[in-house]
Order: sequence, then structure tokens, then C-alpha cells
Amino acid sequence: MTKTYRIAAIPGDGIGKEVLPVGQRVIDLVAQKHGFTVEWTEFDWSCERYHETGRMMPEDGIEQMKAFDSIYLGAVGFPGVPDHVSLWGLLIPLRRELDQYANVRPVRLLNGINSPLAGRGSDDIDMIIVRENVEGEYSEIGGRVYQGTEHEAAIQESILTRRGTDRIMDYAFNVAKTRKRKHVSSATKSNGIIHTMPFWDERFAAAAERHPGIGTAQFHIDIMTANFVLHPDWFDVVVASNLFGDILSDLGPAVAGSIGIAPSANINPEGKYPSMFEPVHGSAPDIAGKGVANPVAAVWTAAMMLEHLGESGAAADIERAIETSLERADTKTRDLGGTADTAGSEAAILAALS
Amino acid sequence: MTKTYRIAAIPGDGIGKEVLPVGQRVIDLVAQKHGFTVEWTEFDWSCERYHETGRMMPEDGIEQMKAFDSIYLGAVGFPGVPDHVSLWGLLIPLRRELDQYANVRPVRLLNGINSPLAGRGSDDIDMIIVRENVEGEYSEIGGRVYQGTEHEAAIQESILTRRGTDRIMDYAFNVAKTRKRKHVSSATKSNGIIHTMPFWDERFAAAAERHPGIGTAQFHIDIMTANFVLHPDWFDVVVASNLFGDILSDLGPAVAGSIGIAPSANINPEGKYPSMFEPVHGSAPDIAGKGVANPVAAVWTAAMMLEHLGESGAAADIERAIETSLERADTKTRDLGGTADTAGSEAAILAALS
Ligand SMILES: CC(C)[C@H](C(=O)O)[C@@H](O)C(=O)O
Ligand SMILES: CC(C)[C@H](C(=O)O)[C@@H](O)C(=O)O
Repeated sequence: MTKTYRIAAIPGDGIGKEVLPVGQRVIDLVAQKHGFTVEWTEFDWSCERYHETGRMMPEDGIEQMKAFDSIYLGAVGFPGVPDHVSLWGLLIPLRRELDQYANVRPVRLLNGINSPLAGRGSDDIDMIIVRENVEGEYSEIGGRVYQGTEHEAAIQESILTRRGTDRIMDYAFNVAKTRKRKHVSSATKSNGIIHTMPFWDERFAAAAERHPGIGTAQFHIDIMTANFVLHPDWFDVVVASNLFGDILSDLGPAVAGSIGIAPSANINPEGKYPSMFEPVHGSAPDIAGKGVANPVAAVWTAAMMLEHLGESGAAADIERAIETSLERADTKTRDLGGTADTAGSEAAILAALS
Repeated sequence: MTKTYRIAAIPGDGIGKEVLPVGQRVIDLVAQKHGFTVEWTEFDWSCERYHETGRMMPEDGIEQMKAFDSIYLGAVGFPGVPDHVSLWGLLIPLRRELDQYANVRPVRLLNGINSPLAGRGSDDIDMIIVRENVEGEYSEIGGRVYQGTEHEAAIQESILTRRGTDRIMDYAFNVAKTRKRKHVSSATKSNGIIHTMPFWDERFAAAAERHPGIGTAQFHIDIMTANFVLHPDWFDVVVASNLFGDILSDLGPAVAGSIGIAPSANINPEGKYPSMFEPVHGSAPDIAGKGVANPVAAVWTAAMMLEHLGESGAAADIERAIETSLERADTKTRDLGGTADTAGSEAAILAALS
């Protein structure tokens, strides 16, 4: 009996529609070799759909997703559709209502990629950023007073719960247990943000007690960003709040020279709901439709998805194929200093897999 | 008649006590040449004082400061004294109650300093970070519910007012007018933080209309940190909220190889209250008392203070002397790849001034 995974594919907008199909073809190819199949269901949820119907996704969109083993998302957002529509109408409710509270972003300096940092090689940059994904600084609570007048003020509430904080800490410490260095660094700002961040520190300390044998460190977010540049080798697993994790998971890939190829996973660790996998990059309207988008992030994301589904062998094959495709200039895209277009990059990855 | 400036010196803790006197001696030397004098008044406000008296500064500390033309601060903080005591008992009330709402931090790759970025020279990194310094994410409003129980939650309020936001925007645009490139980039996160950050964007757009002829750009904080690493040359003046400015003004100096030498000014632009000048670095308890601290940040900060007081010629002399001292290994400190101790670095700066 072959295993069949039911996966929802949401290409979204812009280059999302160009790179997601590449990832799907890569998955179909490794599936043959590793003896499983994928049953894909496509969803046109996007800004285009918003223009036609007034909604990014149907009202029962979240319910529809619950039938799948996982969700494979391209990118959402397009000029003319405000962020609060495209993001708070699709991406953020999916993360929240499917309780994907762990956003996981590996940062690795791959062979074939240049770091913008002088003298850094692939041994120096290998970390995993674990970002709290459903509470914290991103909250719908707040608003304005005296709107439109000179007395106007805007208020934003940030909320950390013990349950929400403890579970992301546990997730991060559990990731650390699978790694060679077994170390977790916490991003904080308890010297400036005096209610939520000291609480975050307390829960980090409590988690460290629950997980003996894991090394720990703690940095204020300001100096942590400096240390990502000065000492990227200090970091193994990094645990961070929603906002700080957002920042670190763009800065990390920049330091690793891979802002265009970074993958991410939105995980519901209990498996009660499907997890969602998306490249870190956006919909890139400026290059959309030209056939030049770099598909590596979508493909690396596909590997993370297969790993999560339990297909580690297939995931490892894909990662190796990516590295092979990055070795030569004519098989990587222009953003990486190569000469290939999307199709050329895909062909190289598929060839490395065969 | 010679001009006399009355300056309050607060060395504070740790290496603050070693580097501030260097800056004072440098100022006294250039003062002679430029025909002004400084009347120094020393304050022992520090964690040590907190241990003896239970307060970082006396109850009328803020009132005492109002008598001065400016405040020259070393660093506060020492192990054993919690941050909320040392910072919220001294540094933050000074910034707030003296309405020093503009925190200004130049980021420049000086000759003699190596950037950790490959292939970057001093033409590539020259920006000024203008940070809102008295409201925003740093707020005393918030607290906990169900403290100490499994239902615990911590709540933090962030508040942006139109007055507070408009005046920091105006300050940043006015700084841009004095610069060659005449460009302001705003740090935002209006796609994730849905109440305060869209408001921030509106006020940035309104400021751009009030200040025609200044180029503008806007980046979400996540991709802005990436661009500090990938494209530092894109930035001229950067305007940011309290938290985002805090992050960018550690990351910027890291990128410019100058985390240990970066200066900062807390400005009350109206001149109603004294402005305060402090190195970005902390009290560095690990190296305190050893005579090895790098005094360049304190000296560069001294130059910013003199510039603010109207002594531009003296400020320029100091900046040149700093660059001279950085040219040779034996006149710069170990953190910069040199061999000098604090005294050696000071001697080189004083010599360059004579
Ligand atoms: C010490 C801390 C409260 C302070 C801040 O965040 O403002 C510091 O990081 C700074 O940048 O001056
Ligand atoms: C688009 C935006 C809301 C989103 C976030 O901040 O979470 C993005 O930056 C990310 O990191 O996935």
C-alpha cells in the first residue's frame, strides 16, 4: 500500500504562482522514488480572487483546510490590495485559526551561496529560528482616539500568555535536543519593554529548568541583531516572540546570503490541524510573470514539508539536489549571481534528483 | 569674553567611569584652542549609589539637571541591580522628563575600522538613525493578570501620539536637509502591527508633504534589518519608533564595525531642557576597572555634544583626531584589532589634537 498525502496548494499572488508549481513537481518526482503519492488540491485564494469576490478566501476557508495533511503556500500580496486585506484576510487567520503557533525558519549558509559577511563559511552559520506565531505584538486589540485630529493617538496591545509562551519555549528546547550543539538563545528586550518581556524571560528560565542538558543564553533584541552580524556562529536555536522572530528571520537569511531562498514552516505541533509551509520571500510583483523568479525557496520549503510529514529521506534528497543546483552559475538564478531562469533552476534540481 | 558651558557629568557604572573622564579631558583641550571653557559638575548617580541610598539619583535629580547646558553620561547598569532599577530609575526618566524625544545615532564606517561586511568601504556606510525616544513601545502601561498561575498573561501597551510622531518625523526631515543625499527612510511594520504602525505610516506620508525636496522610502523592519546588511548604502537618514530605532542603532554600528565606538545624543530640539549625550555601549562589567576600555565612543559622543552646543569647529577637530588614532594598531584598543589600552588610545587622540 502506498501512502498518500492530501496537500492543499495555494499559489497566491505574483511569483507565488511561478515557484509553487516547481515545488509540486519536485515533490511528485521524489515521491515516486520514496514510494508515496501526493494528492494535490489547488486553491485560487489570492488578491486576484479578492478583486473578483471581495474576499481573499471563502468564508469557510479555514474549515476547508482542516481536511488536508498540510498546506503549501506561495506568497500573498499585490499592489492595489492593502496589506491588512491580503495578510489579515488569509495568511494570518490561517496561522492563527489552525493554531500553527511555531514558525520555524532554518538559516544555513549553503555551499554555492556567498554570505555578505567577510570570511564566513558554511560552518559559521547554521541556526534555526523558532518564532511564536499566533500571539504577542501582532494583535487586533487596540485602536485610535481623536482620529483625524491633532490629538490623535494610536494604541497597540501586545499580549503574551503563559500557555502561549511556554509551548513555544518547549518547542524550541525540543528542536535543540535534535541538534548537535543543543543550545537555545532567547531574544528579549526586558530592559525596555517592561511588562511583556520580563515575563518572557521568566518563562524562558522556567523552560530551561524543564529541559536540563540544553545550553541557554539570552540577548536583548538590539544586541542580538548586532551579534547575528558579528558572531553568527554563536547561535544554534533562537526562540523569539512574534515580532522579534519576524525580524530575526529576515536578518538571519540576509546574513546567510539567502534572503531569496529561505524556507519556513508554520507548525501546529500537536497535529490537530494541518501545518503550513511557505517560502519567506513575498510575491515580488516587480519580477512576477517574467519567468525569472528563484524557485529554490519554494523547493526548500517543500523539503521542510516532507520532513514534517515523516518523509525524511525524500526531504534529504531535495536538500542535496538544491545544493547541487547552486554549485554552478548556469543552474542558479540571477539573484544568486547565476544566469538561469526559473525553468533552468528547476531543470537542474530535477536532474540532480534523477 | 569667553563662553562657558555648564555641563553635568554622570560617569555612572563600570567602564562609564573610565571613559567619561577621557572625553572630559579631550573637551578641555579643544576648548582652549577654540576659546571656550567648560564648567564641569560631577554626579555620582549609579548602581553603587543605589546600593548605598536605595535610589539611582536623588528625588530632585531631574530638577537638578535643568540647570545645565547639557548632560554627559557614561553608562549605567551593574550585575546585582535589576535593569528596571538602573534604567527606569535614571536613564529613561532623564530622557523622558527632559523631553529628549530625538535619539540621534550616526553610523559611519570610519577609516581604520573594518566592517564585517565583505568589500564595503567608508563610502558605503554613512547614515543617521533618528529614533523616537519618549513614547511608543517603551511604556509603563500594562501589567499581568492571574500572576503566578497557569492562566497568567502579560499585557504591554504601545502608544504613538500624533504630536510625538509628527515632531520626530520633522526632526528627521530637518536632519536630512543638512545632508548631501537628502533622503529619509521610515522603519515600519504596518503589515503585522495593525494599529500603531499604519498610523506611523500616515504621519510619515504627512511629513513628506511638509518637507518637499526630500526623498523618501519605507521598509518593514524585518526587511530593513536585512537591507542594513545587504545594502547599507541605500540609507541616509532613518526614522524609527523607540523600539525599532533601538534595534537599528545597534545593528547599524555592528555593520559599520563600530559597536564599541558608536556615539549617541538624546536631544530636546526646542532647547527647553538640556540634551544628554551618551556612548551607545553599556557599562561592560566584564572589563571594568582593567584600564582597557575603548574611550572612542565617549570621545565621539563629546564631539556630538560640542556640535550641539554650537562648537562645530571643536567637534570637527575631535572627529579628525579620532580617525587619526584609528590609523595605527598601537593607538587603538584591542576590540578594534589594536594593542593600546584606554590610556594609550587617549594619548593618541590628545596628541592628534595638539
Ligand atoms: C538600556 C536600554 C533601556 C536602552 C534602550 O533600549 O533604550 C539601550 O539599549 C539604548 O539603546 O540606549
Ligand atoms: C507579511 C507579514 C505579515 C509576515 C509577518 O510579519 O509575519 C511576513 O513578514 C513573515 O515573516 O511571514
